[in-house]
Amino acid sequence: MSPTPEPVLDSYKRAAIIGGGVIGVSWAGLFLARGIKVVVNDPRGDIEDLVLAGLAEIAPTLDALGLPTENLAAGLTFEADLATAVSDVDIVQENGPERLELKQRIWQTVERNAPAHALLATSTSSIPATAIAEAMRQPERLIVGHPFNPPHLVPLVEIVPGERTSEATVHQAKAFYAALGKKPQVLRKEVPGFVANRLQSAIFRECVHLVAEGVVTEQELDDIVTSSIGMRWAVGGPFRTFHLGGGPGGLPHFIEHLGRAMESGMWPVLGNPTFDDATVAELTDQAADAFGGSSVAELAAERDRAQIALMRALGETPGAVAGQA
Amino acid sequence: MSPTPEPVLDSYKRAAIIGGGVIGVSWAGLFLARGIKVVVNDPRGDIEDLVLAGLAEIAPTLDALGLPTENLAAGLTFEADLATAVSDVDIVQENGPERLELKQRIWQTVERNAPAHALLATSTSSIPATAIAEAMRQPERLIVGHPFNPPHLVPLVEIVPGERTSEATVHQAKAFYAALGKKPQVLRKEVPGFVANRLQSAIFRECVHLVAEGVVTEQELDDIVTSSIGMRWAVGGPFRTFHLGGGPGGLPHFIEHLGRAMESGMWPVLGNPTFDDATVAELTDQAADAFGGSSVAELAAERDRAQIALMRALGETPGAVAGQA
Repeated sequence: MSPTPEPVLDSYKRAAIIGGGVIGVSWAGLFLARGIKVVVNDPRGDIEDLVLAGLAEIAPTLDALGLPTENLAAGLTFEADLATAVSDVDIVQENGPERLELKQRIWQTVERNAPAHALLATSTSSIPATAIAEAMRQPERLIVGHPFNPPHLVPLVEIVPGERTSEATVHQAKAFYAALGKKPQVLRKEVPGFVANRLQSAIFRECVHLVAEGVVTEQELDDIVTSSIGMRWAVGGPFRTFHLGGGPGGLPHFIEHLGRAMESGMWPVLGNPTFDDATVAELTDQAADAFGGSSVAELAAERDRAQIALMRALGETPGAVAGQA
Repeated sequence: MSPTPEPVLDSYKRAAIIGGGVIGVSWAGLFLARGIKVVVNDPRGDIEDLVLAGLAEIAPTLDALGLPTENLAAGLTFEADLATAVSDVDIVQENGPERLELKQRIWQTVERNAPAHALLATSTSSIPATAIAEAMRQPERLIVGHPFNPPHLVPLVEIVPGERTSEATVHQAKAFYAALGKKPQVLRKEVPGFVANRLQSAIFRECVHLVAEGVVTEQELDDIVTSSIGMRWAVGGPFRTFHLGGGPGGLPHFIEHLGRAMESGMWPVLGNPTFDDATVAELTDQAADAFGGSSVAELAAERDRAQIALMRALGETPGAVAGQA
């Protein structure tokens, strides 16, 4: 099923990571584990310590995914000057703050200084490539490569071409992320929030409503999700699930019966909560009750271990792909 | 973590399954595999053939879950007269059509003829126990035990007490489903669709919107879900996921930053699709493209195998619980 990654990655010897925050460090760790040298560009004075600490934190997960993690930092350098940082790389992955003007300035500098063959990708979750590229001379080169956090673990990368992004750039991006062991998905239109975050927003609105209304607690709602739709959607998405829910008649039968009942009986009564003071106080109190016993870092490590066990069970760890080649 | 199931199940020797459709057969298979004798009440003339065929179909899944499936049908009988069917059982699980008057009639007959100690549960996904019990002399005995389809595989059972359901009945139902190896969750209020189906409805509305708008195909959307939010929510629900997404500050920090951006920027622009002719035609065509290569039964078997691999990886197969006792 998966393409052999090495031939593609042979063309990616050096990467520039712009912005060494959580997303940037995660990309850096994955790139390094795949044998790509990384130069981090970030204006902060303590960026080296931050990135090294971040790498140490994610190394066990990379290791559990079957990726090599010895001397991970050997291929890592830092360069505070953006033009210099991108001057000799094959891929630029930008993870700067979500401010349009800032990203426009960054990308104007990058396109003037990066090699002509380099893949130019932004991790933005909210700004369309079309808008960022307005200030570029070669808008056809810029593409959104939006990871689902954290990029070194969760397979999805949403590839969102801008209006002027070239087909060649789309193909280049898709091949690169697939070679990294990710599951890239090219969107056919630019829409606010792309796809995964829109779906998260839709369900979370109802989650907040149900907790605010006192139907369930946060912990109870989470338990409901993990023991039903969560485990379903880990093995098949909503359309496949409802296709199978339609019996021999599949999705058309589902729509005709349960879909129409959903449209008339359920969609109109779904909640429209707001993050007013009372709701935020309730959500905060319940989060303390449900999750306050451990630090976020401990809970995240526990979650990631379970995540990897699940991915192994479904044959979806990237290390498995690399190991075959 | 899980209670030892045997002491509770010792009190459940015989069950009546009202309605031998897909849900009824699934409950019957699980009850039989747990050593509970089952009498099926269903007016259809060919009900014996239907139930036996259904049991044969789900036996491999029960087996893969670690449950005994030899001579599954040995404990199975059929009784077309409802009063007789429930006269000597410890649990009645009703899976009749979703029509209030019909369910009211059924439950009037059941309460007059079932033993006083029997647990009385309806699998309804849409009718509140309060409404069904209006016609009962002992409304405190009726409770919703709504499974997520199929009950023999997916752990969740939503327990929804009606306004007059007694606390004793709630406890009895929770202990029974837990002893079966399920993950029962008691809702604190009756709301239309309960919780899991409301959440499914909320996300599916946006799924239909994104496909109808041409942002992604059904197959692409499903791939996005399985490779991101699906695998996340299999190991931790939306609140835990966003608690961890908030970094050291947890959920309060998430709400203050990403939650408020969701409220102002995303919730207002989520889609409001309808199942008009063009949308249904598009969804039907895409389902044929995406899933038409195999029968629903083949796809379901494949899905269930993956589901069980996932549950094993997360240590959540009911057989594992039974095996420890």
